[in-house]
Amino acid sequence: MSLTAEPSARRRSREGGRRRDSEGPRGIQQLPWKQPKRLFAPMRLISDDEVEAMHLASLQVLEEIGMEIILPEAREILRNAGALVAGERVRIGREIVEAAIGLAPAEFTFHARNPEHSIRIGGDWIAFCPVGGPPNCADADHGRRPGSFADNQNFIRLSQFFNCIHTAGGNSTDALDVHPSVRHLHVGRAKIRLSDKVLFASSTGWERLFDGIEMARIARGIPMEQMAQEPSVFTVVNTNSPLKLDGPMAMGIIEMARLGQITCVTPFTLAGAMAPVTVGGALVEQNAEALAGLALNQLAKPGAPFIYGGFTSNVDMKSGAPAFGTPEYMKAAIVGGQLVRRYRLPYRTSGTSAANAVDAQAAYESMFSLWGAIMGGGNLIIHAAGWMEGGLVGSYEKFALDIDLLQMLESFLEPLDVSAEALGLDAMREVGPGGHFFGAAHTLARYSDAFYAPLISDWRNFQQWQAAGAPQAWQKANALWKQALAEYSEPAIDPAIAEELDAFVERRIAEGGQPTDF
Amino acid sequence: MSLTAEPSARRRSREGGRRRDSEGPRGIQQLPWKQPKRLFAPMRLISDDEVEAMHLASLQVLEEIGMEIILPEAREILRNAGALVAGERVRIGREIVEAAIGLAPAEFTFHARNPEHSIRIGGDWIAFCPVGGPPNCADADHGRRPGSFADNQNFIRLSQFFNCIHTAGGNSTDALDVHPSVRHLHVGRAKIRLSDKVLFASSTGWERLFDGIEMARIARGIPMEQMAQEPSVFTVVNTNSPLKLDGPMAMGIIEMARLGQITCVTPFTLAGAMAPVTVGGALVEQNAEALAGLALNQLAKPGAPFIYGGFTSNVDMKSGAPAFGTPEYMKAAIVGGQLVRRYRLPYRTSGTSAANAVDAQAAYESMFSLWGAIMGGGNLIIHAAGWMEGGLVGSYEKFALDIDLLQMLESFLEPLDVSAEALGLDAMREVGPGGHFFGAAHTLARYSDAFYAPLISDWRNFQQWQAAGAPQAWQKANALWKQALAEYSEPAIDPAIAEELDAFVERRIAEGGQPTDF
Repeated sequence: MSLTAEPSARRRSREGGRRRDSEGPRGIQQLPWKQPKRLFAPMRLISDDEVEAMHLASLQVLEEIGMEIILPEAREILRNAGALVAGERVRIGREIVEAAIGLAPAEFTFHARNPEHSIRIGGDWIAFCPVGGPPNCADADHGRRPGSFADNQNFIRLSQFFNCIHTAGGNSTDALDVHPSVRHLHVGRAKIRLSDKVLFASSTGWERLFDGIEMARIARGIPMEQMAQEPSVFTVVNTNSPLKLDGPMAMGIIEMARLGQITCVTPFTLAGAMAPVTVGGALVEQNAEALAGLALNQLAKPGAPFIYGGFTSNVDMKSGAPAFGTPEYMKAAIVGGQLVRRYRLPYRTSGTSAANAVDAQAAYESMFSLWGAIMGGGNLIIHAAGWMEGGLVGSYEKFALDIDLLQMLESFLEPLDVSAEALGLDAMREVGPGGHFFGAAHTLARYSDAFYAPLISDWRNFQQWQAAGAPQAWQKANALWKQALAEYSEPAIDPAIAEELDAFVERRIAEGGQPTDF
Repeated sequence: MSLTAEPSARRRSREGGRRRDSEGPRGIQQLPWKQPKRLFAPMRLISDDEVEAMHLASLQVLEEIGMEIILPEAREILRNAGALVAGERVRIGREIVEAAIGLAPAEFTFHARNPEHSIRIGGDWIAFCPVGGPPNCADADHGRRPGSFADNQNFIRLSQFFNCIHTAGGNSTDALDVHPSVRHLHVGRAKIRLSDKVLFASSTGWERLFDGIEMARIARGIPMEQMAQEPSVFTVVNTNSPLKLDGPMAMGIIEMARLGQITCVTPFTLAGAMAPVTVGGALVEQNAEALAGLALNQLAKPGAPFIYGGFTSNVDMKSGAPAFGTPEYMKAAIVGGQLVRRYRLPYRTSGTSAANAVDAQAAYESMFSLWGAIMGGGNLIIHAAGWMEGGLVGSYEKFALDIDLLQMLESFLEPLDVSAEALGLDAMREVGPGGHFFGAAHTLARYSDAFYAPLISDWRNFQQWQAAGAPQAWQKANALWKQALAEYSEPAIDPAIAEELDAFVERRIAEGGQPTDF
């Protein structure tokens, strides 16, 4: 029974027979909701001494060169901690940074309005987020186009539907047909109504940030004092690399900390463009900027939940175009992880690709970046589904394709059963040399869920595949997202919460939302 | 100047101006010849105790169930070592296996006729081989078809041309238009004339094996006594899983050892079909069969170079179709590596895919299997370029696509420069907050080879890419293999060796080659 009072949900409820989960025999056979855990030591590409050298170089950058920080309040906080402020330039001594390290929790719970969808951030935990930020969207039926609120909501539905996506998303394509002053209110309500997973708030303006936090509070139905103890919304702050922090972003770092919510500081350090042309140099710059963010965050409130974001990639030196899923990107994700573990912080990485089509390039660039994330010890893997063209497009087909990749990763991350029964001596005794295991008792007891069953991969032989129309992966992905939208149903919501949310959103829309000059 | 006397090479030589390498400004800008090294600890998915449990289970299989071994000589060798032989069933006691462990070298040099193309096998060294074994080939222009000698030679040329391929190949598609009795002679000569990289010999029959060894000896221009000290040819022995070893394969294991050449024993353990439905069980079976091969090999000649082959994958339990590049495949490659390191042996793994098209599936399955190979500590990675449809097709486009993947892996495996200069403090001082690094001295000194430059990946923005005809990765791969064949030139060969090789091949063809019953 649906608890919701919202018309479209009531309509769905009346249709009847539509399953609330997707485990039924005729629906998409996806993996159950679960947060994967890394069961192996992260990869190490450099020595501890080399990690220390990069750490010290980062401290030297902050101390000698410093950061340009636009927000007066942020400069004041750092000045009070001993930083040298000259105009907008803030030189941050190493003792300020060292004092901030160790204050933020290494691991914490990120609360969703549905407690079953709360997730752990940090440690060996992994969570996948859908693509965020693209102004455009694309699908094979209607092509590439500016994102709309309808598309935006579809991506929220897909993020809710697929169990391997651990956040509500809500930003997979921009709702360009809604005025920017009130877009965050419409999208924010949609996220809460269409999903019950953890929430993101934009820190591109004071009103957007506080509206996002308030909507998260309403969704959880708790007072702000309780929410300060139970992080329930996160924001991503991209520094203006090199070494610059704009006003709204600095505000986000400070205010999220004060309210006990989650800040992820992610420098945008493209080696050769906004960072040195070497991966080592780009990582030192990334590290300096992330540590400056950490210091400001922890000075605003010691112990606030903080995520270290790594996004270092390189540009194509021939054209200046950003490249993603490259060998350099992967190295940066892994060595970045070595730095982050020195600080015992949760680590945000990304699944990325520069491809323009959902082809082999899209897949191998995504795999390079995802393996960099997993082997580097990434905890929160953003853009893990649907990211195309270096972030300019949220793609429906790429989203569906990535779901299969993420499920494969989740299956890989399941521990190997090495019990005596799994080692199968009885089966080998039964079958003996030269036989086959299709009918063995050991097989019959396990065959139905012995292996990962893919959603996209086509394992038919060539003749069968050809007879079926020779579908390529993007065509199977096209069918998958449509089926997922057809099978999707809205999560239940307490009618009182829905009413409070509506009242808040309508009031804020009437007030004009986030002021803009257009 | 070409030393060759063969007509087609003379023609090429006369054309003049064709570069012998591919490093020139107008040619394909590939990475230089180099053997990559793993610079990080292989991944561990199970504990040492669990590895030991799997090892002991394998010993129990060999001792209790035993192997069916068709070749009388092989049974005799094992009986003399203490094995219990009953008919074709051979029960191999653990003391026989334990005595064989540690005899074979952990690392050795595999000699090519061009010493610059000799490679190291084992330790942290990695070598990539092209696809071997498909009866069919395919390209986008002419479709899927039975392999021909012309196609077979084209794949040899591609394997020679691309520096990231470390072996001559020669089996990337079968030369079905040449009679099987003499096919190995025609193809064997082509491999030596079209390539100067390390050689493979087939152990599917006495004559094929010994002809292959003799051709390798002629190519190197050395006596057999010297070759016995300098491994110059390898063979792959697939057991008939479960627990069966046919006549020619057992012969290969014995004779290659006696002649000091390289044997790779690779059980074909598809979980659910020829092996238990659990990955753990399939690995125990793989390990038992590989250890039986090792025991036979080392009994034939202690210290013979031996490679442990891992190929465990799973089947689609709905259709029985073999699956490749799955999460289970990757786990098996990594846990297999943990077992192999217990025995301090070189480890053979594979790059695989079940895809029917050079699409996203082909790419992500290849990436899963390649990362399993690399993280699992694989040394010899077979089928790393061109493998499609689970090994039924050698694809020109897939070959070219995989070259880009392998070059990306090689770039990833280059050590990260963490020198003070690489860490770029001077660059950050020069540029300062809010600037950009495009014109920095640090950038200008490094930009030309700072990052991996892909052969396939398209990093143009959507508009430029669309204006260029919106090429997908397979289309760029199509252009790449054609350009590679156009740029290819035959490696030099000593005329005396070419003459001896021709005389041997013609004599053996006249003698009928490998007897067949058709």
